[in-house]
Amino acid sequence: MRREDATSMAARQREISVSEFFTKNRHLLGFDNPQKALLTTIREAVDNSLDACEEAGILPDLIIEIHEIAETRYRVAVQDNGPGIVRSQIPKIFGKLLYGSKFHRLKQQRGQQGIGISAAGMYGQLTTGCPVQIISRTGRRKPAHEFRIAIDTKKNAPVIQSDREIDWDTPRGTRVEIELEAVYKKGRRSVGDYIEQTALANPHVAIRYVPPKGEPVVYERITREPPAEALEIQPHPLGIELGILLRMMKETRSRQLRGMLTSDFCRVSAAVANRICEVAGVSPTSKPSRLTGAQVESVFRAIPQVKIMSPPTSCLAPIQEELLLRCLKKRVDADFVTAVTRSPAVYRGNPFQIEVALAYGGGLGAEDSVDLFRYANRVPLQYQQSACAITKAVVSTDWKKYGLQQARGALPVGPMIVLVHMASVWVPFTSESKEAVASYPEIIKDIRLGLQEAGRRVGIFVRKRHREADEHKKRSYIEKYIPHIGDALQEILGQTDRKRDKNVANLKTILERSRKM
Amino acid sequence: MRREDATSMAARQREISVSEFFTKNRHLLGFDNPQKALLTTIREAVDNSLDACEEAGILPDLIIEIHEIAETRYRVAVQDNGPGIVRSQIPKIFGKLLYGSKFHRLKQQRGQQGIGISAAGMYGQLTTGCPVQIISRTGRRKPAHEFRIAIDTKKNAPVIQSDREIDWDTPRGTRVEIELEAVYKKGRRSVGDYIEQTALANPHVAIRYVPPKGEPVVYERITREPPAEALEIQPHPLGIELGILLRMMKETRSRQLRGMLTSDFCRVSAAVANRICEVAGVSPTSKPSRLTGAQVESVFRAIPQVKIMSPPTSCLAPIQEELLLRCLKKRVDADFVTAVTRSPAVYRGNPFQIEVALAYGGGLGAEDSVDLFRYANRVPLQYQQSACAITKAVVSTDWKKYGLQQARGALPVGPMIVLVHMASVWVPFTSESKEAVASYPEIIKDIRLGLQEAGRRVGIFVRKRHREADEHKKRSYIEKYIPHIGDALQEILGQTDRKRDKNVANLKTILERSRKM
Repeated sequence: MRREDATSMAARQREISVSEFFTKNRHLLGFDNPQKALLTTIREAVDNSLDACEEAGILPDLIIEIHEIAETRYRVAVQDNGPGIVRSQIPKIFGKLLYGSKFHRLKQQRGQQGIGISAAGMYGQLTTGCPVQIISRTGRRKPAHEFRIAIDTKKNAPVIQSDREIDWDTPRGTRVEIELEAVYKKGRRSVGDYIEQTALANPHVAIRYVPPKGEPVVYERITREPPAEALEIQPHPLGIELGILLRMMKETRSRQLRGMLTSDFCRVSAAVANRICEVAGVSPTSKPSRLTGAQVESVFRAIPQVKIMSPPTSCLAPIQEELLLRCLKKRVDADFVTAVTRSPAVYRGNPFQIEVALAYGGGLGAEDSVDLFRYANRVPLQYQQSACAITKAVVSTDWKKYGLQQARGALPVGPMIVLVHMASVWVPFTSESKEAVASYPEIIKDIRLGLQEAGRRVGIFVRKRHREADEHKKRSYIEKYIPHIGDALQEILGQTDRKRDKNVANLKTILERSRKM
Repeated sequence: MRREDATSMAARQREISVSEFFTKNRHLLGFDNPQKALLTTIREAVDNSLDACEEAGILPDLIIEIHEIAETRYRVAVQDNGPGIVRSQIPKIFGKLLYGSKFHRLKQQRGQQGIGISAAGMYGQLTTGCPVQIISRTGRRKPAHEFRIAIDTKKNAPVIQSDREIDWDTPRGTRVEIELEAVYKKGRRSVGDYIEQTALANPHVAIRYVPPKGEPVVYERITREPPAEALEIQPHPLGIELGILLRMMKETRSRQLRGMLTSDFCRVSAAVANRICEVAGVSPTSKPSRLTGAQVESVFRAIPQVKIMSPPTSCLAPIQEELLLRCLKKRVDADFVTAVTRSPAVYRGNPFQIEVALAYGGGLGAEDSVDLFRYANRVPLQYQQSACAITKAVVSTDWKKYGLQQARGALPVGPMIVLVHMASVWVPFTSESKEAVASYPEIIKDIRLGLQEAGRRVGIFVRKRHREADEHKKRSYIEKYIPHIGDALQEILGQTDRKRDKNVANLKTILERSRKM
């Protein structure tokens, strides 16, 4: 048996394409099993549609269709009325992993990796051999293009199988169709659940959902006001790492360190830049690309010692309390709803904003744990609940204070929906499949504060309801027993019916009065 | 405010390099926090060293050093006596993510992604700005090369900062040094723990560990016999996916379908190939690259209907029962040790083999949960214990049967170490950071069978020990009380001392005899 040496081993070294990597590790992207694959595919397409509509200032009209081809084979279609995609970009967007416009931008977006929709296409291709089909049209006067695109996983590059102009009755938008091995189920973590929760957190979106069986479901939009536009920001100095700072110094267009600090970061004024240079002991006029490693490190260590304003929050577009309330009132059968939009906060230099809404009573089930709806940048998170910072914040809040039952370390029990939304320029997911938020202490703290504020309001309602129930119970005792007392008195004292009725009336008045005191 | 349209959005689309992706998502690779980063860096370097030594048939001598540079800054060095790396390959291996020799090979190896050591270097560069330093020499007559390599994350390509020949007192091997932001701690999940567990599952390895403070620790090798060489195998037809099969049909060198099936897969004889073609209704002599999608799908659907032998197990190199026992006896202070190496099994077409060892009693703590040592291809897994299939198998085994205490859904309690090793050509980790094994039912089942077998043996020992303890207690009662009874009888009956001693001797004999019956 021949053993290897350095030369024979070197001959086998080669590059691995990112597509090959994620084909073999597709569970990392949310394609662990056929049921989850269906949801992930739809979610990636919907994320892209909504992001594009919002960027273009268009009120989204979505059509989501699931067609059954065979028992474990479905064809999914997601269509929007968005800005469309220019022809030359279509192959790469759908046929290449790690390609996109969102990865490098600091603003609130649903997508952030440039990996989702092409990975869904790759999964479809892997399990059915079918290419992704895309139709897109950028305007009424432009032609509609239809592409069928496969992925060459060895090269991580698109293979165009067909490319033609077609007649399309839609004036503008994009339609993606993917055929894949999948399992369709109703109930928890189903596509239906996901679409319902999407509608709840996106009041400006209209959705028509065509499930494989049964009637289409239509969600009308609740507001015609699109969300405030989230603006792109520069990185904040406090979130930067030494290696990134070193690279920025090499790549900056500024000729002086001071200029680099003010123009490549947010919240760095000339005064702040001077102060950083002073603390670092580096001249503000030195040329960034000529700084030594030790000098850059001095600048790096100086940053936390200088007071710098928190990053601007124009990059965030929360749902807002008033719309959350309207959504919950329209979509959930509850007796009481409340919503809290917190002020923006910061983790590792990234601005984020927490929103909490609670819906209580009504048709909600009282016997089980509350329903927890987790959102990141308006996208519902369906899996890995227990690994999520949002869950940790809910579980570590004392809900007994607010009139709910709660076992130690568990979700509270009661007829309630807990909705938590984290909006951020960079949501720290625990995996590429975007299922759970990583547990940064700043994030958990802010969620808890939101939960406490909303919880207090629910607590007031719950206690009032308990009082009313007590009241009602006592009143019903009065109604029930006093006539009998009247009869008994009549019998013992030999009174007339009139006297008896008077006694009963008097007793009621006295008891009512004493109860109110 | 200008809204975007398709053209303005297209202008921002761009490629994202895999290095940029993993810089931003470095928690996915095990660099979530400085303590874990230290462990992950060492682990990746050790994995590479041991894989290279074993492939070259060399008994590994490892040196692992951690030098403190500042409170949160360390310089890690891992040196081996392996085959060395040829000069031209060094930059890519250490300066490019997704580059390596292991990804495409089906055999038991520690590394499998081609991502680990370059990611560690990237983390070092990100947090300290320092390049990776490599010294490598492929033989006594060859020069030693010293490289300093940075990563251009935008291009995912190495940047050679220096490259020179040096004098090195080591005749052959590789030394990697990485400076990084890190936290050094002792105790659970520490580097020390990791090295101890590595020594336990790799009896052929000698390790000298130099911690930042305190004395060096030396682990001598327990055997001079290297592990059996794990051989590369072809994929097994049952583990293949339709998309992969389609690609294989296009890329095969075989001219006929039958030939493709026999030569590109393992365990497919000409007879099996003919049977597959027959069930699929496709001619065995058809040209693979000319098959239609539907024909390939027919072949794909035919595979599970034909009886095919399990994959060969020459690709696996388990530790083996006898060596596991010797390791445990030498390294652990226990009263009883037992080991089970199961027969190979298969999940999704991938062969795997489970080994279980238990060490009980002695100096092991009795009050807490047992210590669970999880291994995948001889590498200790330190994080995400609760998410791991190994833990699930241990927790779902009924340990009360074997004389241990156990709460429902928890690890058993007692003075015991539970060691579980999964060897496979492709360990299904739940994340790239290789911390937990995914829960395939076939894997959990096989681990449980191993635990039950080892558990029964421990159970016999534990029960015997309980009996002995009972025995001892009873005997001590006899020793303690019979003389007093003798005294009492003497006093009551007015007997002589001799008579009393005789009574005592008789009583003891009678009680011993009755107890034994």
